[in-house]
Amino acid sequence: MLKLNDQLSVGGSRILIIAGACAVESLTQMKSIVGCLHNKIDVLRCCVFKPRTSPHTFQGLGVVGLQIVEQIQQTYKVPTITEVMDISQIPIVSQYADILQVGSRNMHNFELLKALGTSKKPIVLKRGFAATIEEFLMAAEYIKSFGNDKVILCERGIRSFDSSTRNVLDLGAVVLLKKITNLPVIVDPSHACGRRDLVTDLAKAAIACGADGLMIECHPEPDLSITDAAQALSLEDMDILLTKVKLVAESVGRHIC
Amino acid sequence: MLKLNDQLSVGGSRILIIAGACAVESLTQMKSIVGCLHNKIDVLRCCVFKPRTSPHTFQGLGVVGLQIVEQIQQTYKVPTITEVMDISQIPIVSQYADILQVGSRNMHNFELLKALGTSKKPIVLKRGFAATIEEFLMAAEYIKSFGNDKVILCERGIRSFDSSTRNVLDLGAVVLLKKITNLPVIVDPSHACGRRDLVTDLAKAAIACGADGLMIECHPEPDLSITDAAQALSLEDMDILLTKVKLVAESVGRHIC
Amino acid sequence: MLKLNDQLSVGGSRILIIAGACAVESLTQMKSIVGCLHNKIDVLRCCVFKPRTSPHTFQGLGVVGLQIVEQIQQTYKVPTITEVMDISQIPIVSQYADILQVGSRNMHNFELLKALGTSKKPIVLKRGFAATIEEFLMAAEYIKSFGNDKVILCERGIRSFDSSTRNVLDLGAVVLLKKITNLPVIVDPSHACGRRDLVTDLAKAAIACGADGLMIECHPEPDLSITDAAQALSLEDMDILLTKVKLVAESVGRHIC
Amino acid sequence: MLKLNDQLSVGGSRILIIAGACAVESLTQMKSIVGCLHNKIDVLRCCVFKPRTSPHTFQGLGVVGLQIVEQIQQTYKVPTITEVMDISQIPIVSQYADILQVGSRNMHNFELLKALGTSKKPIVLKRGFAATIEEFLMAAEYIKSFGNDKVILCERGIRSFDSSTRNVLDLGAVVLLKKITNLPVIVDPSHACGRRDLVTDLAKAAIACGADGLMIECHPEPDLSITDAAQALSLEDMDILLTKVKLVAESVGRHIC
Repeated sequence: MLKLNDQLSVGGSRILIIAGACAVESLTQMKSIVGCLHNKIDVLRCCVFKPRTSPHTFQGLGVVGLQIVEQIQQTYKVPTITEVMDISQIPIVSQYADILQVGSRNMHNFELLKALGTSKKPIVLKRGFAATIEEFLMAAEYIKSFGNDKVILCERGIRSFDSSTRNVLDLGAVVLLKKITNLPVIVDPSHACGRRDLVTDLAKAAIACGADGLMIECHPEPDLSITDAAQALSLEDMDILLTKVKLVAESVGRHIC
Repeated sequence: MLKLNDQLSVGGSRILIIAGACAVESLTQMKSIVGCLHNKIDVLRCCVFKPRTSPHTFQGLGVVGLQIVEQIQQTYKVPTITEVMDISQIPIVSQYADILQVGSRNMHNFELLKALGTSKKPIVLKRGFAATIEEFLMAAEYIKSFGNDKVILCERGIRSFDSSTRNVLDLGAVVLLKKITNLPVIVDPSHACGRRDLVTDLAKAAIACGADGLMIECHPEPDLSITDAAQALSLEDMDILLTKVKLVAESVGRHIC
Repeated sequence: MLKLNDQLSVGGSRILIIAGACAVESLTQMKSIVGCLHNKIDVLRCCVFKPRTSPHTFQGLGVVGLQIVEQIQQTYKVPTITEVMDISQIPIVSQYADILQVGSRNMHNFELLKALGTSKKPIVLKRGFAATIEEFLMAAEYIKSFGNDKVILCERGIRSFDSSTRNVLDLGAVVLLKKITNLPVIVDPSHACGRRDLVTDLAKAAIACGADGLMIECHPEPDLSITDAAQALSLEDMDILLTKVKLVAESVGRHIC
Repeated sequence: MLKLNDQLSVGGSRILIIAGACAVESLTQMKSIVGCLHNKIDVLRCCVFKPRTSPHTFQGLGVVGLQIVEQIQQTYKVPTITEVMDISQIPIVSQYADILQVGSRNMHNFELLKALGTSKKPIVLKRGFAATIEEFLMAAEYIKSFGNDKVILCERGIRSFDSSTRNVLDLGAVVLLKKITNLPVIVDPSHACGRRDLVTDLAKAAIACGADGLMIECHPEPDLSITDAAQALSLEDMDILLTKVKLVAESVGRHIC
């Protein structure tokens, strides 16, 4: 079990629920999300630096987004997670976020991993979309070998030949990781499938097979989401997800907040 | 919901449990399995024709195996499923088996699919290990367009770049199929992971996300199994699996026998 | 070197050129192709049984197509190759075709492979689109172990995560196969890329790295081709391909007819 | 055609030959390589920062390695290429290297790409081992949109389900890229196959299908190479490769130095 702060840990009987925006877009958007969810989730996802395929699309609000995060936190005490894409972003992001995230595209960015190894913050390390289990564990080892043991592994889908879902959620990897490492393992079904109508059932599957937590994307108006609109849950559907996941969690001897 | 016989159907609230031998090896082996499981499972897996990578390995007992199946059925009334690899095997296998199976390697064997379309038996159609969802549904359509509507889809893992598990179980495909087709969808976690220590947790995940049934390989002495020894559950572990799956099934409003 | 008939062999310094229709469509179509190419190619491709993803699309002319092949052969003496999809097709196809082909979707159809092992005809065995090299060689071994040594391996592209080409031509596999087996290895760039503007350059690459032959799809009016229109070369482009391949072949010490 | 310096360009009729060490290990090693090859190649590969799967293996000589590069260049005037793994390495590396390389694992490291967009140096951008063609071109666009047009694309193999070669060289991508972009496209057959016995034939294939250059790993004593020993050519085999590639290049209207 990994302690994240005085109140919060991951890897025990309680399932860690991370939810929130793919990208911080505005104070209004974030207030809607956190106002609705703050009692139901453990960590608020609020990314401000976005790794986008094209340089000509929205790249995240950056530091302005962090100020929105700060305003949110003055009202709601919910812990936050945000992604770092480069060593230079670590200091500023560390002032605002409780947990740092390494995205799938940076799992092999070894210099970033080394730098995060000297941070005191817990790190959610997402599996590269074509990384083997061995490479995934070695990426965690980069962080740990530089002194930071607070690594949470996150399975978020791998690439396959089939384009009917965005990626293929590899729950066999989750079950295997739980057997071969002591690190907590969480699952991001939103990026795995890329379709909001599949997210809830995959979240249930993740918990049934032993995942220690979930990371879910939601939005007050999903179709207006600037990034990843197709996979964002409405806040109502997020509620339904949590209700259903609760029942599955209990069937495997676990619980949510 | 698809009716398999007077007592048995698949696709309703009851989860269909298929379990048994990867390959029929002997009367003793099959008696051990069925003696232990006949009240706990719905269908006995008993394959006698085996599609093996090498022609120099055990190819299944063939017709001798079918006679073993017949002897088993005289004592225990459990329905049986067995694989057909070629049109020529359909008549003889149909005398003994209640359900016919198309293996992953034959999902694209269109002449076999057409011939099974003229059969009265339910068909379990396994997804090709590199077949898209569209190809999977079109393979089912080959059977249906020749007159046989009793098709059960079976997800059994797809190939990926990672060799830490035999295949990658694609539960996103299961959730998607449940949304876009009325055909029942079952899951074979044994072939998906190829490791017995992962089978039970993946079976739980499959049921949590909405699969209509499971196909599990077991063996009275797993390490002595001639085929797929690494993934066969002992009969004791099979029992544990069923107990755990029962709880997950109930958490999603379903039940097992 | 494998002798195909009194005049023709494969695996020596001469590159085997197989070209023709993805599917036999009409006598007119086949006359156009063979009239233009008969002096420039070694074997005429003329498939009459087509493995199609959907049962509701053109399935090939079947026996009527074989009669067209027969008419063609009365005028032009060019050897022919056609695909067999099921054991039941072997006798009739063997009356008309000089070489039998196993398609990618049937590489794992072990009963078909065994039956072809008892044939006297040379067999072009296409690699399954997700078959490992070991599985490919074992499929050849099925044919050989039943008595037929005349097996020609054909690399035709494998599936990947990228949809910008239909498949990925795996020339590393060709180079590897040439090192570990004595069987001739040919390449089908048409199915590999699925785009006619890429075929010629990939054909040159195949010959440069040591392939023993090529199989190319062409059509008198490519855009009107019933099957695989996007990848069929016009007869003029087929001519250009042969001219260019000739130069590359000579640079690696080989030649075409 | 892209001008690299006063003497050197890529994308014209002359094939660019980059060769050298996977990693700079010692002055002796580099002297052996450059002493043997300096008249036969265009650019010397001399990497000093190595992205390794495990943090517990050799990570490259770093700045010490750059000093070795400097000593080499005092004697031999050959241009050099070295990899940068992080923004912080760009200034120091730029003092010594003529061309900067982005490795496969960093193709999605968008902050690094942006920073390289403000460099004056030519950039060899390696394709991510699971990157689509669209993503590859968008990564180049990151560099270009920040002001640096001197981008050379490098295909180096993609991941597949088959472990018989390290990766699968995707020459269809090379042919496609030559049709849809004006950027030069080179090929690294060493990393693609991971086996030295396959490198030469794949290099020939790359040139036959239109690649503008090659990047080849070699070592004075390949089996003693600290990194990627299995794929390094001996200096004698490097000579043979160049002789053979020369002939293929001429067959497609091109030449090497």
